[in-house]
Amino acid sequence: MNTQISRSRFSKDPVQIRLSGAGGQGLITAGVILAEAAVVDGKNVVQTQSYGPEARLGASKSEVIISTKKIAYPQVTKPDILLCLSQDAFEKYFPQTNSDTLLILDSGQIEPQASDGRLIYALPITETAAATGSKVVANVVALGVMNALAGLVMPSSLREAVAKRVPERFRALNEHALEAGEKLAEPLKNRKETVA
Amino acid sequence: MNTQISRSRFSKDPVQIRLSGAGGQGLITAGVILAEAAVVDGKNVVQTQSYGPEARLGASKSEVIISTKKIAYPQVTKPDILLCLSQDAFEKYFPQTNSDTLLILDSGQIEPQASDGRLIYALPITETAAATGSKVVANVVALGVMNALAGLVMPSSLREAVAKRVPERFRALNEHALEAGEKLAEPLKNRKETVA
Repeated sequence: MNTQISRSRFSKDPVQIRLSGAGGQGLITAGVILAEAAVVDGKNVVQTQSYGPEARLGASKSEVIISTKKIAYPQVTKPDILLCLSQDAFEKYFPQTNSDTLLILDSGQIEPQASDGRLIYALPITETAAATGSKVVANVVALGVMNALAGLVMPSSLREAVAKRVPERFRALNEHALEAGEKLAEPLKNRKETVA
Repeated sequence: MNTQISRSRFSKDPVQIRLSGAGGQGLITAGVILAEAAVVDGKNVVQTQSYGPEARLGASKSEVIISTKKIAYPQVTKPDILLCLSQDAFEKYFPQTNSDTLLILDSGQIEPQASDGRLIYALPITETAAATGSKVVANVVALGVMNALAGLVMPSSLREAVAKRVPERFRALNEHALEAGEKLAEPLKNRKETVA
């Protein structure tokens, strides 16, 4: 029952999740995987991505809302969880969080300027992906981290959704990435870090 | 300038598109491909999918809103274009259209009960996909049909987006599927059919 503490944290229903970073970091795929995992769990899900010309250079985002009930408003208003995989994304989306938001950052990509004593999980996500085999699976490492910390979906559902969405020849790589993400978060479940 | 007539039809801005069918027909991927093609064209895009436990059995949908301006409301209110690849999807979403909606149906999957003299493009989308190599590319055939009829994005942008989103070993199959869809729609650009 590793995820019990964090599960209770996200007994919030609906839970609003924003996945952000640069184009090409696989955030749309990550959003779709998380959404499909939640469907396996029997939840209702809305999953959205917005992009424009400026998003090609700067920050892009993918959003997932998970609920046991019908979702009335399909847009993330205040994220309960914010993942940032790039500095641009952090600068753009950090201001739209509050002290209740669970912040997960890629410590290799982002130097947070914020110093409001906020609880932030800063982890070497892309570096872990590279060590697993390729930087391209940073999105799946991030899903592993996020789910280990927040207990959003059943770990088995997340595995099933990853296997379904990923091309067959990259399946093993992605499964290892998911596991690596979960392991990366493991020691943080009890020890909480703040950014000075 | 094949698409000139239909382009003028969708000079509407924003344009709201709903892609519907059964789970496993690749509608999420189709939505993402269309959205990414519109981004290549320099447009703003919001792309959404909603699913719940009931969607696993019945109709599922993916929505794309394309605009030259910032998109204020990220939800499809009244679709300008409705694609249906399954009978369930047709029955669920047809009532939410009006006489201005461009309807594109898979004639091999759907027997429309509606008889209000509405303009409907009913084409053998899945059958064409099967003839191209596999039923799994019905989603990309449908994109080819839709874009040939409505001129939503530059054909080259759609090609680029398909190539980007599809695993390398299925690239040729998907390129053929896109072409087959465009060709399927070709004779219908001038001749318009109604369902009795």
